[in-house]
Amino acid sequence: MIVLGIDPGYALMGWGVVEANGSQMKLLGYGCIETKAGTPMQHRLRTLQLGIRDLTLMYRPDEVAFEELFFAQNVTTALMVGAARGAAIIAAAEYTENLYEYTPMQIKQAITGYGKADKKQIQQMVKLLLQMKELPKPDDAADAIACAITHCQAGRMREQFRMK
Amino acid sequence: MIVLGIDPGYALMGWGVVEANGSQMKLLGYGCIETKAGTPMQHRLRTLQLGIRDLTLMYRPDEVAFEELFFAQNVTTALMVGAARGAAIIAAAEYTENLYEYTPMQIKQAITGYGKADKKQIQQMVKLLLQMKELPKPDDAADAIACAITHCQAGRMREQFRMK
Repeated sequence: MIVLGIDPGYALMGWGVVEANGSQMKLLGYGCIETKAGTPMQHRLRTLQLGIRDLTLMYRPDEVAFEELFFAQNVTTALMVGAARGAAIIAAAEYTENLYEYTPMQIKQAITGYGKADKKQIQQMVKLLLQMKELPKPDDAADAIACAITHCQAGRMREQFRMK
Repeated sequence: MIVLGIDPGYALMGWGVVEANGSQMKLLGYGCIETKAGTPMQHRLRTLQLGIRDLTLMYRPDEVAFEELFFAQNVTTALMVGAARGAAIIAAAEYTENLYEYTPMQIKQAITGYGKADKKQIQQMVKLLLQMKELPKPDDAADAIACAITHCQAGRMREQFRMK
C-alpha cells in the first residue's frame, strides 16, 4: 500500500510518500510545495492543487492521509489555511476516494507513543522507522511523512479516520 | 460586461450574474449552490467547484466578484468556509484571471450609500436597481447579486479590488 501524507499549509505544504508491506515501511519521497507571498491567491491555490495532482500521478497512492488542522493564530489565517487544505483535498479527491485525517496528537501518539512529543522527537522516530540517513527537513515535510506512517500503522483501525 | 458575484459559504454558496452596459444593469440569473451536511468534505468541495465551473461556462462572465470573508464564529468554521472559498476561487480562476473582492461594508456602502445597512435594505435596493418583481432570496443569493452590482459600479476604481 502506498500512502501520500499531507501537512496542509498555504505558504508551505509538506508531503511524504510511504510504501507499506505488512510492518515494513519504505520512504518513496518527500518535500514541500511552496507558494510565494505577494502572488495572487488564485495562483497560490492553483500551485497547491497542481502540486498535489502531480504527486498523485507520480506516486499513485492508494490512500491519502491529511494532518488535521485544529487551530490557527486567528480567523484570517484559518481562512487562508482552510483554502490551502481545500485545494489539496480537491486535487487528492480527483485521484482517489480514500482520504483520511489524523490530528497532530494522534500522529505524535502513533509515532512516539506520547501525544505531546516535540518536533525533534518526531523527526528522530521518523528517521529511525524509515532508516533515513538524515533527519527529514523541513518540519512540514517531516510532519507529512509522520502522518503517512501513522496511517500505515493504523491498519484496520483506519476506517475511523476517514475524512468526513 | 458580465459579472458573476459570489458569496462564499460551505453549506450554501450564493451566486448572481449581472450584465452592465454603461450605467444600465440587467440581472441574468441568481441562486445558491447547496452542499449537504453529513456528506464527506471532498464531495462538498467538489460540488462547489463544479457548481462554479458550470456557472462560468453557462454565463461566460468577464469578471468575478467575491464577497470577502472577514470573520467567522470560530477557527473551525473559518477552516471550512476558507475551504469553500478556495474551491470557488480555483473554479473561477480556471475560467478567468479577473477575480475581485469586496468587503461586506464596501458592498453595503455601494448599494445603499450606508456601510451599516441591514440585509432587508440591501435586498430592497437590489430589487430596485435590477427592476426585480420580488425581493431576491435567499440571503446568500441576494448578497452575491449585491456584490456583482458593487463591482459593476466600481468602474475604473475596480483595479484596487483585484484579488491579492
